[in-house]
Amino acid sequence: MTGAWHDDGSAVVTLTFDVDAETPILAAGARYADHLMTMSHQAYGPDVGVPRILELLDDLGVPATFFVPGWVAERRPAMVAAIAEHGHEIAHHTYSHRAPTSLHPDEERADFERGLAVFADQGIEIVGYRAAQWEAARSTFGLLRDHGLRYDSSLMGDDRPYALDLGDGVRIAELPVHWSLDDWEQYAFLPEPQIGSVIESPRKVLELWRAELDAMRNYRCLFNLCLHPFLSGRPSRLAAVRELIEYGLGLGDVRFRRCRDVAEAALADPDVPTRGLPDVTVDRAVYPD
Amino acid sequence: MTGAWHDDGSAVVTLTFDVDAETPILAAGARYADHLMTMSHQAYGPDVGVPRILELLDDLGVPATFFVPGWVAERRPAMVAAIAEHGHEIAHHTYSHRAPTSLHPDEERADFERGLAVFADQGIEIVGYRAAQWEAARSTFGLLRDHGLRYDSSLMGDDRPYALDLGDGVRIAELPVHWSLDDWEQYAFLPEPQIGSVIESPRKVLELWRAELDAMRNYRCLFNLCLHPFLSGRPSRLAAVRELIEYGLGLGDVRFRRCRDVAEAALADPDVPTRGLPDVTVDRAVYPD
Amino acid sequence: MTGAWHDDGSAVVTLTFDVDAETPILAAGARYADHLMTMSHQAYGPDVGVPRILELLDDLGVPATFFVPGWVAERRPAMVAAIAEHGHEIAHHTYSHRAPTSLHPDEERADFERGLAVFADQGIEIVGYRAAQWEAARSTFGLLRDHGLRYDSSLMGDDRPYALDLGDGVRIAELPVHWSLDDWEQYAFLPEPQIGSVIESPRKVLELWRAELDAMRNYRCLFNLCLHPFLSGRPSRLAAVRELIEYGLGLGDVRFRRCRDVAEAALADPDVPTRGLPDVTVDRAVYPD
Amino acid sequence: MTGAWHDDGSAVVTLTFDVDAETPILAAGARYADHLMTMSHQAYGPDVGVPRILELLDDLGVPATFFVPGWVAERRPAMVAAIAEHGHEIAHHTYSHRAPTSLHPDEERADFERGLAVFADQGIEIVGYRAAQWEAARSTFGLLRDHGLRYDSSLMGDDRPYALDLGDGVRIAELPVHWSLDDWEQYAFLPEPQIGSVIESPRKVLELWRAELDAMRNYRCLFNLCLHPFLSGRPSRLAAVRELIEYGLGLGDVRFRRCRDVAEAALADPDVPTRGLPDVTVDRAVYPD
Repeated sequence: MTGAWHDDGSAVVTLTFDVDAETPILAAGARYADHLMTMSHQAYGPDVGVPRILELLDDLGVPATFFVPGWVAERRPAMVAAIAEHGHEIAHHTYSHRAPTSLHPDEERADFERGLAVFADQGIEIVGYRAAQWEAARSTFGLLRDHGLRYDSSLMGDDRPYALDLGDGVRIAELPVHWSLDDWEQYAFLPEPQIGSVIESPRKVLELWRAELDAMRNYRCLFNLCLHPFLSGRPSRLAAVRELIEYGLGLGDVRFRRCRDVAEAALADPDVPTRGLPDVTVDRAVYPD
Repeated sequence: MTGAWHDDGSAVVTLTFDVDAETPILAAGARYADHLMTMSHQAYGPDVGVPRILELLDDLGVPATFFVPGWVAERRPAMVAAIAEHGHEIAHHTYSHRAPTSLHPDEERADFERGLAVFADQGIEIVGYRAAQWEAARSTFGLLRDHGLRYDSSLMGDDRPYALDLGDGVRIAELPVHWSLDDWEQYAFLPEPQIGSVIESPRKVLELWRAELDAMRNYRCLFNLCLHPFLSGRPSRLAAVRELIEYGLGLGDVRFRRCRDVAEAALADPDVPTRGLPDVTVDRAVYPD
Repeated sequence: MTGAWHDDGSAVVTLTFDVDAETPILAAGARYADHLMTMSHQAYGPDVGVPRILELLDDLGVPATFFVPGWVAERRPAMVAAIAEHGHEIAHHTYSHRAPTSLHPDEERADFERGLAVFADQGIEIVGYRAAQWEAARSTFGLLRDHGLRYDSSLMGDDRPYALDLGDGVRIAELPVHWSLDDWEQYAFLPEPQIGSVIESPRKVLELWRAELDAMRNYRCLFNLCLHPFLSGRPSRLAAVRELIEYGLGLGDVRFRRCRDVAEAALADPDVPTRGLPDVTVDRAVYPD
Repeated sequence: MTGAWHDDGSAVVTLTFDVDAETPILAAGARYADHLMTMSHQAYGPDVGVPRILELLDDLGVPATFFVPGWVAERRPAMVAAIAEHGHEIAHHTYSHRAPTSLHPDEERADFERGLAVFADQGIEIVGYRAAQWEAARSTFGLLRDHGLRYDSSLMGDDRPYALDLGDGVRIAELPVHWSLDDWEQYAFLPEPQIGSVIESPRKVLELWRAELDAMRNYRCLFNLCLHPFLSGRPSRLAAVRELIEYGLGLGDVRFRRCRDVAEAALADPDVPTRGLPDVTVDRAVYPD
């Protein structure tokens, strides 16, 4: 242990699972509750995918972070308990999986706090947050500050952790994500609501992610992988995740960590830079709304 | 024969062919009846694809299930008879290939029963059903119960068969499907109505499906492959299907079955779980319509 | 020469080039005439692509068929003359590249005959036709009959030539096409009008087409390849076309022919079936418009 | 040095980086300034990607051209200075990254001149231009003439440089681009504004580009590669760019040049053809607006 956020690794892997279940579809329209194929497609994630994922992580001895919407935790408390019992982190992923940028700040606050209350009821300690669809608004960071959270994982301004200065001396860690390390763009498909296009092969996805892990080792990056149990819980996709983890373990110099541990290490590392939120002032004479 | 639904196989393959012909296009607009390229594109399925598929299945000695809309059976009774004579199952796939979720329950009932009547007229026994576009509604399962069908193959809540409790002590088997085991997302393309984007190579599709079959053997899954004769009936795609079947046969521990046989075995297997229909109660204050 | 349309080949290749130039874009909106990138993107086809294609065909000693909109022929008579001088066929591809299904029959007739007049003025004999976007209407075949054309190449009801009975004892050949043998779905991209999505690698496209040619040899099919000079005229794509042709030539039992020669052979071959146009009667109570 | 634009190379490579940062998103709607993930996604380009790109170019000893919107240069003068200090060219890419075809000519002029003024203030000499989204309008070329620029790089009429006759005896060089040599179609993805679909693997992209470079050597082409730091600055994508450059260097007969040097060489080479702007006269009776 050197005090550096990366613990002398060439790269750090955070395996994150967004257990969205039915929420992204319901956020597109409550009417989909009666589309039974669609509902069952989403339920596969917590009901079939998560147990297999927990088994895989046990097998390989690596920790992970599960971002769970409060709505999902409320309906599946046993799943949340099982994740915690296996030693993984549970983090906040809104209550309803509606994008903060699509809500009034008052709605966002109500949704955020309703989610927190679910986890409090279940005795789950929450220190991290990820916005639904990664669509964080400016108001989101006020909520993180007000509730004392330690990190966010929704932005894309770097591929290494950094500290966000939220004002009043409050700093949280940002653990950046990216579209290329998300299984959604590779696998998701539904005709209504219309999502995705061609469904990719796990072989291609493994190639994509392995190449990124390889290259990230040149820059000491955070390989912050975002997986959805209803997608990557399917057999051959989970086999590709297994192969990826085994590859990473085999490299020897890659660390596997929970998000909360990376966040604390980053906040304690003096070499990690502190930044403000993106602040783009727009001249409306140049850019229309 | 052990009594287990999988008959001691590591996985079970159900080869299913949705012989939609012109119906998905007509459901998008009757005006397309005068778009001759489009109509001929769809007619290729029953007219050219199905005979080649029957020949291939004979060659390899594997059984299959053909889901046929009543509208198609009505216009091509000789094709239906040929499928039956080759020992394959014919199953119900709506009358008109309109999605149940897009119809009023009365319309759905009329459509469902009109389809059943076509098969009754042709002396074809029907025990299974698949919704058009897999878009089963809640009302769909009432129809299955009322007409004594034994299985549905439209949901995605698992990758192994399960029993659905339809109330009043009625249980039917669910043989789940998935987008990644469907040729539509890989091959379908039409500019109007606009369908698909990039057309994939059969080599990629074979890789995708073989990887899933391989991985499903770890979980004793149902490899429920959905093929469309107007798509997979094309020469190199059919060659990929042949290669996939030969691969599966070569594994030795994979069973090839008709859907009806898997359904009966699942209903008789005490280890197969029984579930209710997806039942998602939505708070409209959280999720807009 | 056996009298069979395929001349004892295992498959017949017709290399066809749709020299659309600016027309598909103008058909989407005359305003694009002032989008200079877009116009130059399309002009690349006749101006850079066609000369390279002619050189390639000369090199390999294979004949081809060029489908040219009358509007393009009118503006580039030297290109049309060069194609003819190299021994290739020139065929009718509408005047303006507007889809027949999008026009009133009177408009379609005017467009069709204006195209024919352009070729008559240039002394080019026309015996074959392909609809813009392959979107043939029922009226299209009346025009073919009235003007004595010998073949159409717009439908998809088979992958082998057949005869179309147009009434009054008139038969023409149909040389079917298919989306999977078209370079458009693999390569086309423009943001406005919005066309295409991901741009594929020529390596993948070559794999796709070679697999289809291989498999077509099992069914004595017509490998009717549709290429656009503004797409496949680009260097690495043209190299893939070269590789494909060389592969086909190397097989030894694949014939390369102009469309008009295949059409005449098919019409003279008693084993080639005769069919009517697709005739789908639609019950408007079942299918909405 | 032979006087030929290609300097006796089999092909010439111009590595170009469009440093768009936030501008393409703001041009789609000023409201996105408050979508923090999206803003950070774009900021990655100048903040993380550009320094790595400069390091890579130094390592390999190849020059490049950076097309920078004036809005970006105004906000990140240190980045512009760093690019210049490394010996690379900076070229004009509009002020705001709004497409010229979407603006009134007066708006386009104001935007164009505001961009020029930014560079003048920073002491950066500008001789070349690329339209936002490559969407050059007819008026664009009047601006290039009026301001004495020496080249444009927005059109697609060839894959070799040519001279554009702008009237009044003024000639500028055109360095043509193409969608297949752009990283946007391979990698870009955002849900809102909706951009892209499937995200490709750098392995596929490298294959695509290497094949084009190989084939271009047969025609002495300009391999005018367009990269975006927010896309290709990601680790594994940058590794693919490195591999591509190393491959090109290893060929021995491929020249790496800045755009301005190719432009001057082309204007001085008597074998380079001179052309007019695309001039398509449209009959509105044929083509609707």
